Amino acid sequence: MKQERIRMRPIWQDEKTGAVQVIDQRALPGKLVTMNLESVDDVIFAICQMVVRGAPLIGVTGAYGVYLAAKNSKAPLTDKTCLKQEAERIIAARPTAVNLSWAVQRTLEAVLAEPNPDARIQAAQNQAAAIAEEEVQNSKMIGHHGLELIKDLAQKKSGAPVNILTHCNAGSLACIEMGTATAPIYAAFDSGIKVHVWVDETRPLNQGSRLTAWELGNHGVPHTVITDNAGGHLMQHGMVDMVIVGSDRTTFTGDVANKIGTYLKALAARDNNIPFYVALPSSTFDWRIADGISGIPIEKRDPDEVRYMPGKPKTPDNLLLPETSPAANYAFDVTPARLVTGFITERGICKATASDIKNLFPEK
Amino acid sequence: MKQERIRMRPIWQDEKTGAVQVIDQRALPGKLVTMNLESVDDVIFAICQMVVRGAPLIGVTGAYGVYLAAKNSKAPLTDKTCLKQEAERIIAARPTAVNLSWAVQRTLEAVLAEPNPDARIQAAQNQAAAIAEEEVQNSKMIGHHGLELIKDLAQKKSGAPVNILTHCNAGSLACIEMGTATAPIYAAFDSGIKVHVWVDETRPLNQGSRLTAWELGNHGVPHTVITDNAGGHLMQHGMVDMVIVGSDRTTFTGDVANKIGTYLKALAARDNNIPFYVALPSSTFDWRIADGISGIPIEKRDPDEVRYMPGKPKTPDNLLLPETSPAANYAFDVTPARLVTGFITERGICKATASDIKNLFPEK
Repeated sequence: MKQERIRMRPIWQDEKTGAVQVIDQRALPGKLVTMNLESVDDVIFAICQMVVRGAPLIGVTGAYGVYLAAKNSKAPLTDKTCLKQEAERIIAARPTAVNLSWAVQRTLEAVLAEPNPDARIQAAQNQAAAIAEEEVQNSKMIGHHGLELIKDLAQKKSGAPVNILTHCNAGSLACIEMGTATAPIYAAFDSGIKVHVWVDETRPLNQGSRLTAWELGNHGVPHTVITDNAGGHLMQHGMVDMVIVGSDRTTFTGDVANKIGTYLKALAARDNNIPFYVALPSSTFDWRIADGISGIPIEKRDPDEVRYMPGKPKTPDNLLLPETSPAANYAFDVTPARLVTGFITERGICKATASDIKNLFPEK
Repeated sequence: MKQERIRMRPIWQDEKTGAVQVIDQRALPGKLVTMNLESVDDVIFAICQMVVRGAPLIGVTGAYGVYLAAKNSKAPLTDKTCLKQEAERIIAARPTAVNLSWAVQRTLEAVLAEPNPDARIQAAQNQAAAIAEEEVQNSKMIGHHGLELIKDLAQKKSGAPVNILTHCNAGSLACIEMGTATAPIYAAFDSGIKVHVWVDETRPLNQGSRLTAWELGNHGVPHTVITDNAGGHLMQHGMVDMVIVGSDRTTFTGDVANKIGTYLKALAARDNNIPFYVALPSSTFDWRIADGISGIPIEKRDPDEVRYMPGKPKTPDNLLLPETSPAANYAFDVTPARLVTGFITERGICKATASDIKNLFPEK
């Protein structure tokens, strides 16, 4: 029996109560659980604990955090200090994805620019909703542009499925709808092109096997889960036609911070002459950092995420290593621009060079 | 409280009963369980189910399998057909590691060469024990030669620990004593050189976090467990001085089949100018295959090893992906010779070229 397709965003406002609600992504794929976010503390918890994750989504969640800060403020909204402090707290929740500070700053500025103190809560809400809608439009356009790349590959394969490898989850769960890396895949699938996705497991939190596989299955897209170790072997044997990943922060020079392990797949793609694309909305570009490897802060998360089985209680029975063995948990790595075939953005596709990026976004 | 060091081989014969006993490596690091192997079926089960694993160890286990075939034979040992069939069954247990067929063939030949049928069981036992002792000597010599490489790095680092990354388990558990990849590490540690080992988790069966971390901890060697995704990031940031891995089969031209994911680490090492060494006894060379990528058979194991949490029952609660999502489980990949800095063998160190390998092993 085919499972009924679930159509919901990972974040939304309840129409009646106005409460901010999110899918608790920690519970997927086993359970579909939602969570109410009622305060800045709730928002910080949700971002830190990865109830929500994915660069565009944590941006939107952060924007709603500013709205909740304004809504719950005990100080009058003429006192801007308090609101700024709350915004800083939200931005500090996770360091790597640039979308968070971008969306929070933008929402804060909208609030502060509103001359009427009584309209400031509404201004925050409007701005958060606007960012969410922009990301939806960005994903649609990323899908539209990326579709052409998959169409070309499909023609070369004359009817055989186009095999696409992706790492982590840069799907609708990481964005609002359609995703970034997955948007071209959904666009291709919906237009009748045969595709098959190799889903990297993405240790330690298994966003590939838990989230991307769930999303693709929900959409009906053929896919196979593999370990993070397996992609190189598949590429050596002609079983991957294209790699598409998302990004948490991309420098204006084209260096890509994304989930740990992305760099290894980029190296394997290059070694096997397989196109390696990064799909991202412009909100993910960092227009100030030139050298991604030295400049982008890489989050070091709790080693217990490596030490214990994902989603299980921290008991000796669920340890993945000897009790006395330490672990380290770097959450992202940086793929140098030289390994990236191109970027798929809402404005089109460009090469991973400062000049090509600038051509597409001349106003930055 | 420091755990008392456990000194035992992963395979041995009970002195009184002569029974072949092994450590059940599936139960580590939680429990130290041993298993009796009493028949060829037991041996095949142990190899297939990875009660024992690691190229040198499955070679020795296979050799003892021939001994058990001879011991349990109902046909007289003048009937060579039956023994040959049993040997073929053992060889078929796992396809990638060449040590298995090498050790089984060698033991079979020793039996068949023994003119006195009554002495054939003893001949098999002697040969299996001899192979085990040779592997112990090989490991010692690999440690001896590899130590020089680590000494050189230690000098350059003037007192700071030498950081070595290893993938999977090529330790004493994979061999008989000291291991292959770990032999130079133990030799360096025992001679007072400061070392620190990055232990790749090695999904899906976690031989890194379960076995290598256990071994290193047992020996007192400082180490940190990381996900398979993390090595590239560490290398980009100067946190890895050297990579040493083992091998399941190495062509005479220098292509290295090893646990899936090894190729990705070799690519990252090359991209960051970090030496990438493969430690192996000569029993792991395949003297017939020239092209590793097209020629070495890569085992495809049960997808459930990817789908369920390692060591847990196959219940929905222990699924790592949606119930309807398929998985694939390639167990090895091939690292091309061009990415290998050198081989550490029992005869010394050589480059990964046919001519250098031939120089070291001219009789082959």
